[in-house]
Amino acid sequence: MDIRIDNISWFPENLPEEQIVEDRYKDIIRKNYLKAWFNSIETSLVEREEVLCSKWWDDNEIYWLHRLNWEFSDDSKLGLRFDLTVPLARYVALNNDKLVYPFKRFQIQKVYRWERAQRWRYREFYQADIDIIWNWELPLLADCEIISTIFNTLNELDFWKFTININHKDFLIGFLEKLWIWEDKLLKVISIIDKKDKLDNDKINFPKTRALLEELLWDKEIVSQIIKFILLWNKWSLAKIEKFVWSDNELRFLDWFKKLKEVYTSLLNLWVPKRYIKINPSISRWLNYYTWIVFETFIDWFESFWSVSSWWRYDNLTWNFIKNKYPWVGWSIGLSRLLSVIWATSKLNYQIKTLTDVLVLNIDEKYLKKCLEVVKKLRKAWINTEFYLEHSKISKQIKYAENKGIRYVLILWEDEINRWVIAMKDMFVREQKEIDILSVAKIIKKEMKS
Amino acid sequence: MDIRIDNISWFPENLPEEQIVEDRYKDIIRKNYLKAWFNSIETSLVEREEVLCSKWWDDNEIYWLHRLNWEFSDDSKLGLRFDLTVPLARYVALNNDKLVYPFKRFQIQKVYRWERAQRWRYREFYQADIDIIWNWELPLLADCEIISTIFNTLNELDFWKFTININHKDFLIGFLEKLWIWEDKLLKVISIIDKKDKLDNDKINFPKTRALLEELLWDKEIVSQIIKFILLWNKWSLAKIEKFVWSDNELRFLDWFKKLKEVYTSLLNLWVPKRYIKINPSISRWLNYYTWIVFETFIDWFESFWSVSSWWRYDNLTWNFIKNKYPWVGWSIGLSRLLSVIWATSKLNYQIKTLTDVLVLNIDEKYLKKCLEVVKKLRKAWINTEFYLEHSKISKQIKYAENKGIRYVLILWEDEINRWVIAMKDMFVREQKEIDILSVAKIIKKEMKS
Repeated sequence: MDIRIDNISWFPENLPEEQIVEDRYKDIIRKNYLKAWFNSIETSLVEREEVLCSKWWDDNEIYWLHRLNWEFSDDSKLGLRFDLTVPLARYVALNNDKLVYPFKRFQIQKVYRWERAQRWRYREFYQADIDIIWNWELPLLADCEIISTIFNTLNELDFWKFTININHKDFLIGFLEKLWIWEDKLLKVISIIDKKDKLDNDKINFPKTRALLEELLWDKEIVSQIIKFILLWNKWSLAKIEKFVWSDNELRFLDWFKKLKEVYTSLLNLWVPKRYIKINPSISRWLNYYTWIVFETFIDWFESFWSVSSWWRYDNLTWNFIKNKYPWVGWSIGLSRLLSVIWATSKLNYQIKTLTDVLVLNIDEKYLKKCLEVVKKLRKAWINTEFYLEHSKISKQIKYAENKGIRYVLILWEDEINRWVIAMKDMFVREQKEIDILSVAKIIKKEMKS
Repeated sequence: MDIRIDNISWFPENLPEEQIVEDRYKDIIRKNYLKAWFNSIETSLVEREEVLCSKWWDDNEIYWLHRLNWEFSDDSKLGLRFDLTVPLARYVALNNDKLVYPFKRFQIQKVYRWERAQRWRYREFYQADIDIIWNWELPLLADCEIISTIFNTLNELDFWKFTININHKDFLIGFLEKLWIWEDKLLKVISIIDKKDKLDNDKINFPKTRALLEELLWDKEIVSQIIKFILLWNKWSLAKIEKFVWSDNELRFLDWFKKLKEVYTSLLNLWVPKRYIKINPSISRWLNYYTWIVFETFIDWFESFWSVSSWWRYDNLTWNFIKNKYPWVGWSIGLSRLLSVIWATSKLNYQIKTLTDVLVLNIDEKYLKKCLEVVKKLRKAWINTEFYLEHSKISKQIKYAENKGIRYVLILWEDEINRWVIAMKDMFVREQKEIDILSVAKIIKKEMKS
């Protein structure tokens, strides 16, 4: 009795009611990923050390495996995957001649990181990634497919009120270079702009951002132009932005804008409503790392939404492993973290205690055969049906249905059976009626829909 | 380029086409488990050493975790789960006051065992378990629910031609005791009977089994009675068996037979067709370990089917962890091994290369908007739709659809668009026709069904 059975810290487990929600979220994600022709794959839990460490990573965060009397056979040192990207790169490198390109895959699996205790952080958590990989130049349409798929998914996950901000990575840089801001200073300015929303509550004058920029650049006029640039993009419509770009008369701006507009238009065509997308050239977080278009997703009621969802685009996925070049764009939903945020902020629209639709009561052995026939009929119609395992008091069984949150209770008594009917109790609206025993599945299905 | 990217031995990975099959199998299992009101749960990958080793297990088969500069904080030594039963026992012990009983759970997760290389054995593999746990005496109906659920599942998994053999554990023992066979000798006789089907091809005379029994018992008459007993049960109908039991006039036989008959009848009522069940008192494999009724499943075309599916019933699930008593019955399908057997023996009835239903071709930028509208419409109707990512030669895109095994190809040209139609190519029957652009989703859905 001295064995510790409490959960291991930061390895969360769900109660059955919570698991229903997690499973539902996984289903929604999977359905939406499939719809946009992403292929499902799963990779093995463990990877070789040389693969895991091929990407920059803090060794200390990786869980390594060992075994009593480990035999050093053909096996290298093995560790648990810490993301789904390194395994994807290894998988594509390994199977590169067996895959058909463009290769679009989704992967919903748990990953493992030894991280210091922090809110919203786990050591075992679900990631739900989509990626598009090509052995060819990857067109912007790939980005659009990724964004529209993520939009559809988040939207169905009750994730109202979020905005997808898009930018071309050279936009802000080009603008700043035009103001003769280069190199070190350029990076510093970008870093200040990146923090502007956290620095200032005043989203019109941005006083603190302004002060920091003035301190760095020693030029009030230039700083005003930067602030104006940020404000313009935040507030104007696409048409007005286009006019501004034209009036600016810089060819490279026109070219970048054309690409952004292409993405924007395709997103609209592919389902994403206008109010969810914003062209926002002040987005700068990933400018150093990523190529082409950059995105960010903001959510109104949770400031660090970026931490539950992230996006990437690289020139080459497999550069560590093979010579072939595979450009690649992807997005990840941090499912476990998303769920914990939703739970913590009580934003869940979906509440259900059980997936069982019907409980058939077990009253007396002599009705057993009839009861099991009804159970069989309901299950044949894919209605999730429970039969109480022992014959006991009706009140006890009804109490059980109530505790479990089962909606329909069916009772078969002699009198009813002789008249070919069943008593059906709707536990939610607390009504009881008699239904025809022969059409029981049809009637329950109809009830469930109404 | 020197990094090893090949799969780690006995950690199998699927190609996308194979993953479609595995996902489909998982869906079928899950759907059937849900239908019979089992709850989904997932437990964490890692368990404390004291939990893992609470059940008898070869330490050497467990994968343990370690970390660089491991800090011995509140964490015990951790290892990967090697089955889903130990985690279930720990989960029930931990949450015992939050669960509603009878607690029926299913769990489809991977488990990890360091095992010596063997055919059909992996070190990472999927198990799909169902279990019923009660804080009360667990009625035989629980066993029936388990068996009928496993039957429904295997049946939908294209698993034709298997037989579920049922027995009451005291039946064979009682019969042998009546012949004055006791203790050591009893166990030896049972062990010979257990191997009879492997020993003898002649399933009527069982010459080798007979010889072994005679060598042990020195009594031809008694051996003949044993063989007759085995044969009777293998060949006779339930009614004839019942008559035999009655004529035997032994009260305890009658009692056991009543229980067996109860299970048998409930199974028939719950869907399992007669030809799949056999009462078989010569089943002896688990007599020493399990209580009450015992089962075995045989499959015609694969002799060691038992290794892909196993069953158990115990008096107490959580005895290692808490004082409360939880009787418990369960069954496990070894999904990964099952799939590998099915692949190896080419028994798969289901072949599909992609879950994408439709490819919309990308011919010219000027049709982009129209194309994306069609894509959006199809996806809205949950038709898995791919849009080719770049405009390129039609022949190249058609070739791509062929390689991927996509059935419907949609082509939007100027002339067609003006007439509000789309050219639809059915790649399987190699036909092309024009379909109405406004009802595209409806038409494709109809085509897919036909």
